[in-house]
Amino acid sequence: MTVKIDPTEFAGKRVLVSGGTKGAGRATVERFLAGGAQVVTAARGTPEPIDGVEFVQADLTTAEGGELVAKAALERLGGIDILAHVMGGSSAPGGGFVALTDDHWLAELNLNLLATVRLDRLLIPQMIERGEGAVVHVTSIQSVLPLPEATTAYAAAKAALKTYSKSISKELGPKGVRVNVVSPGWIMTEASVHLLERLQAANGGTIEDARQVVLDSLGGIPIGRPADPHEVADLIAYLASDRAAAIHGAEFVIDGGTVPTV
Amino acid sequence: MTVKIDPTEFAGKRVLVSGGTKGAGRATVERFLAGGAQVVTAARGTPEPIDGVEFVQADLTTAEGGELVAKAALERLGGIDILAHVMGGSSAPGGGFVALTDDHWLAELNLNLLATVRLDRLLIPQMIERGEGAVVHVTSIQSVLPLPEATTAYAAAKAALKTYSKSISKELGPKGVRVNVVSPGWIMTEASVHLLERLQAANGGTIEDARQVVLDSLGGIPIGRPADPHEVADLIAYLASDRAAAIHGAEFVIDGGTVPTV
Amino acid sequence: MTVKIDPTEFAGKRVLVSGGTKGAGRATVERFLAGGAQVVTAARGTPEPIDGVEFVQADLTTAEGGELVAKAALERLGGIDILAHVMGGSSAPGGGFVALTDDHWLAELNLNLLATVRLDRLLIPQMIERGEGAVVHVTSIQSVLPLPEATTAYAAAKAALKTYSKSISKELGPKGVRVNVVSPGWIMTEASVHLLERLQAANGGTIEDARQVVLDSLGGIPIGRPADPHEVADLIAYLASDRAAAIHGAEFVIDGGTVPTV
Amino acid sequence: MTVKIDPTEFAGKRVLVSGGTKGAGRATVERFLAGGAQVVTAARGTPEPIDGVEFVQADLTTAEGGELVAKAALERLGGIDILAHVMGGSSAPGGGFVALTDDHWLAELNLNLLATVRLDRLLIPQMIERGEGAVVHVTSIQSVLPLPEATTAYAAAKAALKTYSKSISKELGPKGVRVNVVSPGWIMTEASVHLLERLQAANGGTIEDARQVVLDSLGGIPIGRPADPHEVADLIAYLASDRAAAIHGAEFVIDGGTVPTV
Ligand SMILES: [Ca+2]
Ligand SMILES: [Ca+2]
Ligand SMILES: [Ca+2]
Ligand SMILES: [Ca+2]
Ligand SMILES: [Ca+2]
Ligand SMILES: [Ca+2]
Ligand SMILES: [Ca+2]
Ligand SMILES: [Ca+2]
Ligand SMILES: [Ca+2]
Ligand SMILES: [Ca+2]
Ligand SMILES: [Ca+2]
Repeated sequence: MTVKIDPTEFAGKRVLVSGGTKGAGRATVERFLAGGAQVVTAARGTPEPIDGVEFVQADLTTAEGGELVAKAALERLGGIDILAHVMGGSSAPGGGFVALTDDHWLAELNLNLLATVRLDRLLIPQMIERGEGAVVHVTSIQSVLPLPEATTAYAAAKAALKTYSKSISKELGPKGVRVNVVSPGWIMTEASVHLLERLQAANGGTIEDARQVVLDSLGGIPIGRPADPHEVADLIAYLASDRAAAIHGAEFVIDGGTVPTV
Repeated sequence: MTVKIDPTEFAGKRVLVSGGTKGAGRATVERFLAGGAQVVTAARGTPEPIDGVEFVQADLTTAEGGELVAKAALERLGGIDILAHVMGGSSAPGGGFVALTDDHWLAELNLNLLATVRLDRLLIPQMIERGEGAVVHVTSIQSVLPLPEATTAYAAAKAALKTYSKSISKELGPKGVRVNVVSPGWIMTEASVHLLERLQAANGGTIEDARQVVLDSLGGIPIGRPADPHEVADLIAYLASDRAAAIHGAEFVIDGGTVPTV
Repeated sequence: MTVKIDPTEFAGKRVLVSGGTKGAGRATVERFLAGGAQVVTAARGTPEPIDGVEFVQADLTTAEGGELVAKAALERLGGIDILAHVMGGSSAPGGGFVALTDDHWLAELNLNLLATVRLDRLLIPQMIERGEGAVVHVTSIQSVLPLPEATTAYAAAKAALKTYSKSISKELGPKGVRVNVVSPGWIMTEASVHLLERLQAANGGTIEDARQVVLDSLGGIPIGRPADPHEVADLIAYLASDRAAAIHGAEFVIDGGTVPTV
Repeated sequence: MTVKIDPTEFAGKRVLVSGGTKGAGRATVERFLAGGAQVVTAARGTPEPIDGVEFVQADLTTAEGGELVAKAALERLGGIDILAHVMGGSSAPGGGFVALTDDHWLAELNLNLLATVRLDRLLIPQMIERGEGAVVHVTSIQSVLPLPEATTAYAAAKAALKTYSKSISKELGPKGVRVNVVSPGWIMTEASVHLLERLQAANGGTIEDARQVVLDSLGGIPIGRPADPHEVADLIAYLASDRAAAIHGAEFVIDGGTVPTV
């Protein structure tokens, strides 16, 4: 049993991926490309060109960056059929809730909630006009299983994104636009590889030892491993595809069983 | 964008589908067949033969029926790689909780919980031995959104099935067997068509009027329609496939947005 | 700040407590008595008499036992205003899901679901007639956080009880009968004391060491201790009281923070 | 059965109530006062003095206002034992998600999330020092059941507050500080009375007709009425009291059954 991608699955589809230059976002760009879509994404710098991908240089955590990307996306592709918000992450310091300043809170809210809210506000109206479109928001299992050491504000912002998604799904379902959420646990991105290397440097031992430290901090992962970025990307693509035409207002968790509750 | 099925996706896979003779179960049988799997299912009567499908005549709501089906499945296919429990439903009368006798409760528990528990107990051990397997349990949005008129016991049994699924996922993840849940809302099965015809006969008006009566009883469906059985089947197939190798212990709702809460 | 009980809080109220001879059930009997209620409970044996408590000798896990208790309760007290179902527990063996036979499943379902369903069916109708009544069902955090070693069927039965409670709350709210759920984590009952003693005998070390073993199996309890039976009883009394007149169809968790998800 | 308040229940306790000048906040001030506590609250204007209540003139939606209130509270009472965050609400316009500007989002996040985060950061450390304290955050059933017409950002902010509460509960439980959430549905405040009067003026008919319009928008309330502010206040007081010493990291819904899911 191998995973084959139909190269015409997304033929004619115009896809915007936020956070598309690394990790699960990059894998999502590749997944839609492999399925035959036209893809646009944003980057702060100037990445190497990829066939079929439009890059817009902008910072999506600002209102101006969002406007720039939305405008460029519509101009270059003539419209957006699929919005995949993979952007997100946490750069807050450790030390529990007292270490989180107002600036940390606003940074986490901008990156993990408001950047998505702004792009949706700019790009969903043209979906409503056509009576067709699919939106996927990537949250995190921390929206329900928050870790207090450093990621309280990140977890809270992702919880807001999840409830926001359900709210707009009630308005958008009757207008032909589907909205769903993908909620990943630990993903083995380049950033995760670097984290393991730093842990190994700090603690000694092997990379496998470092991996165990992270697994323990999560309370274990029943399948014994993090998700691959391409597995998360495939789930996003599934939800954005016509195969999922009856799936709306839902949250699909991909965490290898990490969340211990129903 | 059309939904194409890779005819080799499930090549070499041996699949047991419970409830496979009608509705979403029948569509699930067809979906795995189209993907190249060998399929076995159970029926109380003697259905027309289908190429690639083994039928076992048995009543899965009894312990004896479960044993008969498990034994025949293992003998005829030499093992089961994928277990798709689509069986379920409610035949309890209206009238609220006082109308549900002990016999109704036991019938609903047998059909919607214990039939699955028994087959799992008989068929998962050979998956554990091979260190490989995928199990999908079909519940219902009523597990979280119960309707009190006639389906309280059905909803309760499906809630039990959901928590049971999470519990065994904790044991089975480390053993290589994935367990996930598909939770559908209203599905437009043959039974639903007959329900609409009966409603039309009773109330007058058009089939569309009857459809509206059912939609109203659910509090509306944001996408405006029930799921097609083949859409539910495709989600089951997705979860059972290697594309979902990182998805475990999860519940995927397919209800067009019916459940109004996150 | 001390916890004072108003001795007239439940004056004139007739209360049935299931499972009232030990643990949190016994504490619930005492709590309602201290609040001035008349209390009836059931016991399989013949316990020492307590002033203000009616004992009925019966086994509530059987249909006959339920009928006997309901009939005696109505005859002796003339009606029941408050139903507190504290009954429950697990006696299934360890060994994961394969060790649970059909008989184990039926025993767990009878004790943790059907005993309550039957008493509700017999005693709620007289509440509906008066347009007044309060029902509290005790479930368990395992309904959402199941432990797979020995309590899968118990967890599933409690999940069914929770969804059943929400379903009947929809019917009963408009009829003046409130229905709520209390979901405890670890409670330091006599049975828990004996468990710790057995663990100490088996493992050596102190009682505190044995306590740590149990805490670890739960993933830790943020407040560092199990609940006292009287704390669970007080929450049941709160929900049954007129102070909670606007609380209906809710689930109140009392677990010191054990469940790690929102 | 009448609700009596023990006038010594909170004797010696110093309580800060945010949002304490109207609605459920005002009722919470009164509830703690009746229980013998010292109470401090903030108001933008200069309200009439109440015996036992310290008013601080400040706007808690700003960082400066939060600092002013925290400082004044500690100076005037010498410490805070109980933090009850009742503050919140929505002033966003109707028109669905496109009508919500960045300014609306920030206003809703400040009022419903960040005001609480800031006060917690300033006032919980002195609780940690004493190894004792109780915090109650008031969210809304919209955190799980969002309404898309005007309150999407409010609902999202309250969802963030809920996950934030669970996150800090994991850190604070071991330090002796309990954190819980009260999630109300419709409360019959002065603001609700005015809403009904405006609806009556707009639509004609009686106040009862206007009440039905609001009930319908919520999908109905099984108990047939909104909560009284004093009922919400009593639940907040219960969670802050020693009766709830084993309740931590929990969310108690008070909505008369409005949320239709478990
Ligand atoms: Ca579409
Ligand atoms: Ca879940
Ligand atoms: Ca496998
Ligand atoms: Ca609905
Ligand atoms: Ca959900
Ligand atoms: Ca009543
Ligand atoms: Ca824990
Ligand atoms: Ca919860
Ligand atoms: Ca304390
Ligand atoms: Ca409702
Ligand atoms: Ca709930």
